Amino acid sequence: MRTLGLFLLALALPLAHADEGMWQPHQLPKISKQLQAAGLKIDPASMQRLDQFPMNAIISLGGCTASFVSPAGLIVTNHHCIYGSIAYNSTPEQNLLQDGFVAADQSKEIPASPGTRVYVTEEVTEVTDTVLDVASDAQRGDAYYQAIEQNKKRLVADCETSQDYRCEVYTFHGGASYFLIRYLAIRDVRLVYAPPSSIGKFGGDTDNWMWPRHTGDWGFYRAYVGADGLPADYDQANKPYTPAAHFSVNKDGLAEDDFVMVLGYPGRTNRYRTALEVQNQFDWTYPTAKQYREDYIEAIKSVAAPGSEARLKYENTIAGLANYAKNYGSMITSYRKGSLLQDKQTLERDVLAWIDRDEARKQRFGMAYDNLEHLLSEELKHQERDLLLAYMGRTNMWSVASRLLKLAHERQKPDLERDTGYQERDMARFAQGLQSVDRRYDAEVDIAVLLHFFSLYERLPAAERVVELDEFFGLNGQQDREALQERLQSMHARTQLNKADVRLQWMEASLSEFEASDDPYIQFAQALWSYNDQIEQKNKALAGELLKARPLWMQAILAYKQSLGEPVYADANSSLRITYGTVTGYSPQDGLVAVPFTTAEGMLAKYIPGDDEFDLPESMRRAIAARDYHEYADPTLNSIAINYLTTVDITGGNSGSPTLNSRAEFVGLAFDSVYESVIGDWSYDPSMNRTIHVSSPYMLWAMKYIDGAGHLLDEMTLVNNPH
Amino acid sequence: MRTLGLFLLALALPLAHADEGMWQPHQLPKISKQLQAAGLKIDPASMQRLDQFPMNAIISLGGCTASFVSPAGLIVTNHHCIYGSIAYNSTPEQNLLQDGFVAADQSKEIPASPGTRVYVTEEVTEVTDTVLDVASDAQRGDAYYQAIEQNKKRLVADCETSQDYRCEVYTFHGGASYFLIRYLAIRDVRLVYAPPSSIGKFGGDTDNWMWPRHTGDWGFYRAYVGADGLPADYDQANKPYTPAAHFSVNKDGLAEDDFVMVLGYPGRTNRYRTALEVQNQFDWTYPTAKQYREDYIEAIKSVAAPGSEARLKYENTIAGLANYAKNYGSMITSYRKGSLLQDKQTLERDVLAWIDRDEARKQRFGMAYDNLEHLLSEELKHQERDLLLAYMGRTNMWSVASRLLKLAHERQKPDLERDTGYQERDMARFAQGLQSVDRRYDAEVDIAVLLHFFSLYERLPAAERVVELDEFFGLNGQQDREALQERLQSMHARTQLNKADVRLQWMEASLSEFEASDDPYIQFAQALWSYNDQIEQKNKALAGELLKARPLWMQAILAYKQSLGEPVYADANSSLRITYGTVTGYSPQDGLVAVPFTTAEGMLAKYIPGDDEFDLPESMRRAIAARDYHEYADPTLNSIAINYLTTVDITGGNSGSPTLNSRAEFVGLAFDSVYESVIGDWSYDPSMNRTIHVSSPYMLWAMKYIDGAGHLLDEMTLVNNPH
Repeated sequence: MRTLGLFLLALALPLAHADEGMWQPHQLPKISKQLQAAGLKIDPASMQRLDQFPMNAIISLGGCTASFVSPAGLIVTNHHCIYGSIAYNSTPEQNLLQDGFVAADQSKEIPASPGTRVYVTEEVTEVTDTVLDVASDAQRGDAYYQAIEQNKKRLVADCETSQDYRCEVYTFHGGASYFLIRYLAIRDVRLVYAPPSSIGKFGGDTDNWMWPRHTGDWGFYRAYVGADGLPADYDQANKPYTPAAHFSVNKDGLAEDDFVMVLGYPGRTNRYRTALEVQNQFDWTYPTAKQYREDYIEAIKSVAAPGSEARLKYENTIAGLANYAKNYGSMITSYRKGSLLQDKQTLERDVLAWIDRDEARKQRFGMAYDNLEHLLSEELKHQERDLLLAYMGRTNMWSVASRLLKLAHERQKPDLERDTGYQERDMARFAQGLQSVDRRYDAEVDIAVLLHFFSLYERLPAAERVVELDEFFGLNGQQDREALQERLQSMHARTQLNKADVRLQWMEASLSEFEASDDPYIQFAQALWSYNDQIEQKNKALAGELLKARPLWMQAILAYKQSLGEPVYADANSSLRITYGTVTGYSPQDGLVAVPFTTAEGMLAKYIPGDDEFDLPESMRRAIAARDYHEYADPTLNSIAINYLTTVDITGGNSGSPTLNSRAEFVGLAFDSVYESVIGDWSYDPSMNRTIHVSSPYMLWAMKYIDGAGHLLDEMTLVNNPH
Repeated sequence: MRTLGLFLLALALPLAHADEGMWQPHQLPKISKQLQAAGLKIDPASMQRLDQFPMNAIISLGGCTASFVSPAGLIVTNHHCIYGSIAYNSTPEQNLLQDGFVAADQSKEIPASPGTRVYVTEEVTEVTDTVLDVASDAQRGDAYYQAIEQNKKRLVADCETSQDYRCEVYTFHGGASYFLIRYLAIRDVRLVYAPPSSIGKFGGDTDNWMWPRHTGDWGFYRAYVGADGLPADYDQANKPYTPAAHFSVNKDGLAEDDFVMVLGYPGRTNRYRTALEVQNQFDWTYPTAKQYREDYIEAIKSVAAPGSEARLKYENTIAGLANYAKNYGSMITSYRKGSLLQDKQTLERDVLAWIDRDEARKQRFGMAYDNLEHLLSEELKHQERDLLLAYMGRTNMWSVASRLLKLAHERQKPDLERDTGYQERDMARFAQGLQSVDRRYDAEVDIAVLLHFFSLYERLPAAERVVELDEFFGLNGQQDREALQERLQSMHARTQLNKADVRLQWMEASLSEFEASDDPYIQFAQALWSYNDQIEQKNKALAGELLKARPLWMQAILAYKQSLGEPVYADANSSLRITYGTVTGYSPQDGLVAVPFTTAEGMLAKYIPGDDEFDLPESMRRAIAARDYHEYADPTLNSIAINYLTTVDITGGNSGSPTLNSRAEFVGLAFDSVYESVIGDWSYDPSMNRTIHVSSPYMLWAMKYIDGAGHLLDEMTLVNNPH
């Protein structure tokens, strides 16, 4: 095991075009020329070291990115990243979501929602050799999968020496290399300041993924540690954490064509999938899943009238379903207009021809493509049934019962051998998930959803039906909606899993207690157990085979690309990356140009009094009407820049990432991508891929002159652009 | 009566800003400096004469504008203006709407739809004195209204010496001046060429009022006359009409910032309405009418499933309702964002103050505003009931029966005293209207619509209810939907007015035959007659008062504006106007810019195979993919310009208007306005008011290389831009 520590390995290749690419820090020295040509003023080499500025000012919140902006542990991220903490601290009397929150001083800062963590990346180690060190008898897929998993879990266990640290093994290039990352996990995190939703969520779902945009998507936490400077449980006596570095905050912001870079934790991209996977995903999966999501929403609405208690419980579910239905819609549209599939096919043809031209390459990669394609076709064989069951499994009691039974089975194994999500380290989060079911569950709604999906299930070919499911519900291929409805109603009426304490008790139950239970949903989980388990084993075996097959094909692509001198960065996998680009507009369609900045006046023009999505605080409206922009006025725009567009290459997980100018000064936060670049997870199109940021001048102006959070500016290092 | 003939009176004032204004030809000499400064190269003075180029190349189609583009009477206008003629000549076997139509030579040109006329403006005469020459005893509103109407009708009757001429008296400034216009009415009009709907209607309802746009909205007629050169009934032996002039057609088109002008017949604007009218219209009428239209559509759809025979009959009705619901939506939005009401209020305050500052002005205009406001408030008193009844009166049997009974009453009077629309000259069109009812009528649908509006009617305050209606249907203030439904079903089942021949027979029926009829809808019309008649008399009396009051207030505004040197043009009233401006984009909202040209590639990007709205002919798709643009390629765009935006000031009725460059060469057709300028009928906003045109290079390219209509180019005078 080579410990890279803070000196990271470098294997980057030259860039084909700028802007595309989520680079690992260790790759930066190799693209330093491009970075400097693009406008970077600091030393690119400094960015490969995680213990140096700017990398040591970057934070993961687990799912979101954040950064330190003061020596006193002040953290800035997106409003939507701290949304849970604002909601958690809201009461009917004191609606912080609606009104915003400003702690007048540190003593008034309040705990973030339970489980909130600030993860500071401390060490990155390549562990490929260790992970791939598999006994020679572990050659079958399931055994191989298990062996790899065990190696990874052991690395994590060894690394997590106390609850002060969280460790993860990240897979690069589908299994070609593995990195272990160790984070300092600060667990006393406090809410410092959140603007009202009329600023922080301005535009709501309507503007989500859309340009023009005017969202003030920012919010502030502070990290606290014990007297010893180490992570500690919440204690009013804890002290603000002193980060090794923090970003200066630029008061002037950016101009068109300026260099920008974004540092953060992009979650997942699929840029190296095969043509078969792409075609299936866009021609089948996305259209089908979009339909299922729309059906799901339809089913909820059919029994939960607007404003009803049931409806309130499901508003978040509806929003989540709609959000990705819209996302899939964009991807389907972009796919149909673009050449993604043809590009993939061309690449594969070229790589295969290139392999074929050399005997050594043929020896090494000759079967790589066919093997992978074979496995991938296996994976798709039952996708209709699988997707249908996955959506049925989203209903609350089904999901709760299945997870609880799986936990009971996993608990039979030593901790290290359990599936991810069922280890001791996951139990706090597991319990929290069970706890929160009440807030989103209504029996009648879940029954309506299940009835709809059962009607689709009943149309599956006989061979695709699940015998255990048919038997449990007495489905015999004849539609018998009424009987099914009665059965579900009775199950939902009788199950005790709708009670939080009962759910939590089941976390400790033995297998025999499950067997003996007369709870109808526990019985349901029992009935489906053998099927679920068998599918899971099959999937693991396939995953094991893929862990061997995909890296080989990836290595062939990498070698081919290297032979052409073309850029290679790994797909996003929630590890720390750097992307850079410029401030620039784009043409979403012929005849229209999106310009790179929106203005305060444009925001005011969207204002709808008292609207859920387009309301604005009166003080802000008055300030805009009077153009009271003070030192934050942008002379070029003759206004304040609210949001802006850049070409940087981000995805989910980058939310809250600091946007930095050429001097690595904070100039805003990345918070969204435009609709036309939602397909960016599959392919980056330099003409369409645009990230949306909220500008630092807007943030500072609103904090100082609207929200009464000007005292936070005092602890920041504020800077201006050079003249 | 001063006969202006071809030398038109001039009273124009200087322009405040260019682009706004629908100018009467006689006003042009007074704005010649502005026209030349804007870029006009021909002599502005030449445009005041209707017998000279370019005015004598302009045609009205009654509702649309058109122009001559060859010495052989070839006429170009919008595809949507000749839509009826294409539909009329379509059969299931030969679907010209879908496939387009090209007459290989003149002998293959086919008659336009019955009633199609080409109106060439021959003479404009100011007739204000004659119209206002009213006996001193006609001072009460209804008598005044009747006297004015009679004067106008007499002028028209004297002017229409034969069916070769159509004459109209146009009211300017709400009654401040009147002009008689005589048109040569050519009645042998033939369809020459129409592109397939996939070109001519590309974008369909989705793109209607929208930018970016890619619609090939053109089509060609030819005017034919008898051997004597005068209008004649259709005869294969007729000869093409030789127009006094025709437009040269420019092959190169326009560039950004080029001068353009549009000559045509804008229908109606409301730029001089009072604040009270504006407020009521935007706060009450548009929102209510939008709701009624949406309700109406909802009611149709509730009983006419997609694809059903009933639904097919109502698709046009739905499209019409939806079209203006969308239109009203845009106006409401623009109104709420803009300052129209405040602007009106400011103007009125300023005019009143200006009047107040001078004794003579006080003498003349002192009561003008209050009088007008008083009358306008009267008009609005029963608007809820009136609008509701108006939408109920759109249902087919209600409308047919009411119109037939009114015709029987009007036929008691001498022709000249009858209401407009009920004179002998209107009877052919009247019969045609009755004939076409079958194509859009289904009993069940109309019943559903009526039931919905009755449910709204029943919520009216008691004082607003119509006694005659309540009595006829036995409505007693209690909801009794079932009884009402049965009654309507029985009426629709028993009425004979669902038969075209019966409807036409009733055109000749006497009042006593109406009285004796047992047709339930005739009985309904009888029952409502006294109410309708009384309302109509009241409205006429009010209209008469307004014909006196509004001109006085308009004259006050005109005098005030004159004192400021501000521009005054009259509201559109379907008479010939000139508007000029430049090719330029706009910002529909903060963060977005609409650029002034769309391209062929942009059109191809919208293509959806086999779609109703976004299909494209295969030959065109192939030509675009191969960039086979020949001599029509635009080097700046590196494509063909499909549609473009200008600042010219148009409204409905301008459809089909030729767009002319600075040398008065044809460079395309105006066919729509952008969504943000729908409110333009009420107020022109130079930053938002944009007209959409189809470009001449696109027309010529598609004709020559796609549609096989290249032979039409041979009879045109094709010109290039000077180098």
